Parts: sequence; structure tokens; C-alpha cells
Amino acid sequence: MDNEQKIAAVNKYMDAFSGADMNLIREIYADDAVVEDPVGSEPYVGIEAIVGFYEVAFATGAKIALSGDVRCAGNAAAFPFKVLMEGVDISPIDVFEFNAEGKVQSMKAYWG
Amino acid sequence: MDNEQKIAAVNKYMDAFSGADMNLIREIYADDAVVEDPVGSEPYVGIEAIVGFYEVAFATGAKIALSGDVRCAGNAAAFPFKVLMEGVDISPIDVFEFNAEGKVQSMKAYWG
Repeated sequence: MDNEQKIAAVNKYMDAFSGADMNLIREIYADDAVVEDPVGSEPYVGIEAIVGFYEVAFATGAKIALSGDVRCAGNAAAFPFKVLMEGVDISPIDVFEFNAEGKVQSMKAYWG
Repeated sequence: MDNEQKIAAVNKYMDAFSGADMNLIREIYADDAVVEDPVGSEPYVGIEAIVGFYEVAFATGAKIALSGDVRCAGNAAAFPFKVLMEGVDISPIDVFEFNAEGKVQSMKAYWG
């Protein structure tokens, strides 16, 4: 998986979140992916748990937008973004780890 | 370890690197820490291997400076910074994981 593909996956994630597009979320993540958002909280394990997490997130109406470059390294990408929602000031850094099929195997979100 | 302590450790790291201060590097890292810089490369395991890594890095004369907020979550901190060296344009995101003693147990650098 080259860097362009990783960056494309991150941009697809921005679109999925901002468009509340659960089909795109299912396309991005591996079936056995693990999401830890924020790091230190109980992880969501497997695509159905992850879909449940995004259902709650999408219900807030929040959108997200990159706020800096996507940094690619090895099988991973780290990227800063802003949560766009009135009254909320959250600017996480997320780290994606990709599997051999180009799906996100692990997502960790750093904010708090 | 609260967020202020994590941010202080990151700032100490900026000083250690920019001042080529190996004593400070030894103070920041756990004896059995692991450094993977960049992610996907062979990790440096243990403080002596890590010191060897920074000897090479310090010899370049590069300095580093934060380029955005330190994001704290759980036992970790993620932070974007710039490498300040002529002819070099590298802006990594590093992730520190801290142990119970407040030392950096794991460092992963995302750039490439």
C-alpha cells in the first residue's frame, strides 16, 4: 500500500464521517478492526461495534476536516483534524494502521 | 500522570533534541523503552540502542520544534513538530506512551 493510497483512505474517512455515510465506514474498516477513541477508553472491537460507535458520533451532527498533512510511515498514517461542531473545540490526531488488503485494522484517536 | 506532566515531558524532549542533551534523553526514556522512527523501520530496543540512535540524529545538527498542540489521551501523547535543518522538510507526528513512572516506554514517529 503506497502513501497515495493511505492518503486517499484518510480523505475517504473525512468524507465518510462528514457525510454520515456508514457504507463508506464499512468499506474503510476491516471486519475485525479495533477502534480506540480516545486512547485509554474501552476499544470497539469488530465492525458491528465500530458501526455502533459511529452511529452515536453521526447523531451529533459533527463533521471533521483535516488540519494538517497526513503523515505516512510503514503500514500506518497519522493525521491531525478538527471536529466541526458548535460549542466543541476538539482537534485530535488519529493513527490508522492498515492491513494487507488496505483496510484500516486499527484506529487510535489522541485527544482529551 | 496528568496531561500537564505529559506536555512537560514533550517540551523536555524538544529541549533534549535541540540541545543535543543526551542526559535529558536518558531521563525521558525508560531503560527498556522502544523507539520506532520512522514507523515501519527496525525498532531501537533499550536505552543504549536509543542513545545510539540520538547520537546519529544529534550529529546532523538538526533541531526540532512543536508545530501544533500536544494531544494527550490515556497514557499517551501525540504531537506534530518540524525538523529544523537546512535542505530538509520533515514534519513528523510522534506518539509517546508513558509508563507508570512517567518515563517514555514507546516512541513511534510517523513521517516518510
